[in-house]
Amino acid sequence: MRGAVIHGTKDVRFQERPDPSIRQPTDAVVRTVAACVCGSDLWRYRGVQEILRPTPIGHEYVGVVEAVGAEVTSVKPGQFVVGGFLTSDNTCAVCRAGMQSHCLNGTGYDGCQAEFIRIPNADGTLLATPEEPDDDQVPHLLALSDVMCTGWHAAVCAGVQPGSTVVVVGDGAVGLSGVLAAAQLGAERVIAMSRHTDRQQLAVDFGATDIVAERGDEGIQRVKELTAGIGADAVLECVGTDDSVVQALRSARPGAMVGWVGLPHATDLPQEHMFWRNVGLRGGPAPVRAYLPDLLQRVWDGRIEPGRVFDLTLPLSEVAEGYAAMDQRRAIKSLLRP
Amino acid sequence: MRGAVIHGTKDVRFQERPDPSIRQPTDAVVRTVAACVCGSDLWRYRGVQEILRPTPIGHEYVGVVEAVGAEVTSVKPGQFVVGGFLTSDNTCAVCRAGMQSHCLNGTGYDGCQAEFIRIPNADGTLLATPEEPDDDQVPHLLALSDVMCTGWHAAVCAGVQPGSTVVVVGDGAVGLSGVLAAAQLGAERVIAMSRHTDRQQLAVDFGATDIVAERGDEGIQRVKELTAGIGADAVLECVGTDDSVVQALRSARPGAMVGWVGLPHATDLPQEHMFWRNVGLRGGPAPVRAYLPDLLQRVWDGRIEPGRVFDLTLPLSEVAEGYAAMDQRRAIKSLLRP
Repeated sequence: MRGAVIHGTKDVRFQERPDPSIRQPTDAVVRTVAACVCGSDLWRYRGVQEILRPTPIGHEYVGVVEAVGAEVTSVKPGQFVVGGFLTSDNTCAVCRAGMQSHCLNGTGYDGCQAEFIRIPNADGTLLATPEEPDDDQVPHLLALSDVMCTGWHAAVCAGVQPGSTVVVVGDGAVGLSGVLAAAQLGAERVIAMSRHTDRQQLAVDFGATDIVAERGDEGIQRVKELTAGIGADAVLECVGTDDSVVQALRSARPGAMVGWVGLPHATDLPQEHMFWRNVGLRGGPAPVRAYLPDLLQRVWDGRIEPGRVFDLTLPLSEVAEGYAAMDQRRAIKSLLRP
Repeated sequence: MRGAVIHGTKDVRFQERPDPSIRQPTDAVVRTVAACVCGSDLWRYRGVQEILRPTPIGHEYVGVVEAVGAEVTSVKPGQFVVGGFLTSDNTCAVCRAGMQSHCLNGTGYDGCQAEFIRIPNADGTLLATPEEPDDDQVPHLLALSDVMCTGWHAAVCAGVQPGSTVVVVGDGAVGLSGVLAAAQLGAERVIAMSRHTDRQQLAVDFGATDIVAERGDEGIQRVKELTAGIGADAVLECVGTDDSVVQALRSARPGAMVGWVGLPHATDLPQEHMFWRNVGLRGGPAPVRAYLPDLLQRVWDGRIEPGRVFDLTLPLSEVAEGYAAMDQRRAIKSLLRP
């Protein structure tokens, strides 16, 4: 089969790779229907994270089950499935506590931007759709593999409730998913911080009630004007830089929570904006499997269309252009189809 | 009247001070029935915090209302009252959000280790007991002024629920109050980290199910053994040093919350124990007024005896010895009676 392999900075190649096979009785092999490029993949693409040897890449996918190991009982060949960006057995003590992204037996993948994928822990990772989806549902299902669940996790960690005022810092695919999550969880006011017209429009379509284009002190000032002068009940931090973390913490009212899903590049956490303002910080890699049943149903019912974050669709063979377009900010998120 | 004034490091004097009076129509003046010394008072006592001029000190009290301003409606002269360590109007947007310790019109006090105290924002700060309390209820009511509400805040911030496994880091008056709070909130297992026999005993009396005397890696190992190998659902950080914050974060299972009320001396927050383990951190100065109605009722009904953290009672005139005893760890917490 063929799949994407990263060889070095800005060097992703679509090349021949060994066909995956069932190695453990709990494995499945999936034929990829769609995959995509994650903001976190760009870390390696941009050389922020070192590449020691050519490495298969990608961790988001939907597909059709091709084969299952002897112990797999919850999915069978021919079913259309969604899986998260990490595998989980969904039975260990950590999974039972709802934090499947830290499964005691969890794993990553050997590159999901590929024609076929081996899925360890198939029973605890994959969820089948009720029927074969229509083609236009595929992007929405694919978004559940990471970005939508990550935005949802931010909203859950921030404690968004019906009636909440919410600020979302970051207008990338995760931030936009966070806007959608906050609106779905019943937020009364969703303030999206965004400077890009096209992203502002999608934020509004996803449920944003207000757009704040300003940043820094001005941004805080605008947020306060929209939140009775005190800041938001819940803030979603979907970037991960020093500036965005401070922006998020300062946008929160005393007693609020910041849900934190932007992969942290922050060098130090500013305690002065936390303890002395009673602002909490909670987040990390999203437990996709915990959210998947609910979110898959919302997609199936047409209540959410998270796949709208994909604004570029390419053949899988053009994966390198999928990376380049995101790196050069010509695309929010690239969808790849074999 | 007479009251405590801190003049410098290890120099607290009981001396003549001006009688407090009603300055604002929202003020009350309270005749002190009991006051106490806080762990945070020791910062100045020990010279960690600079003393620029002789300053009245103390922020915990119970007493009898002596006089009220023209606009005070909720308490009247002769009533026995409890107030928190900060005043709050209990009507501003922040108070309405339940975070009265950050009231937009809140204030501190001009020294509560005194015979009389001026209480700004009397309506939003003081709560009267149903009747005149018995003398043996006084310490329990006094504990609500800070330490019990602070322990309660740690448990609330950590998300303690019925059935939770809880670790409490710190066996001072706040940590012990945290044990009591966790047990009252229905925790199934409360693990108190304590190396002092007398404090261990009080922790058990307050509801601790397990004592861990070890610290560092050994302490984490013991906690894991008691929590299905994964760490606790909720952790109360009641010290505030670098070591104790790390101890708390590492004692938490993936997805858990750390309630953070130890006044932070920590120089840096260790993100590696937060984001990558999905462990959240939330806390700050307790919104006493939010918790007071519930906790006062629990004391009144005899369901909790938080005043058991006081192990030294002195005449107010011997306030200097109250500080010295806590500084030298001869006492957990000193109660002072005029």
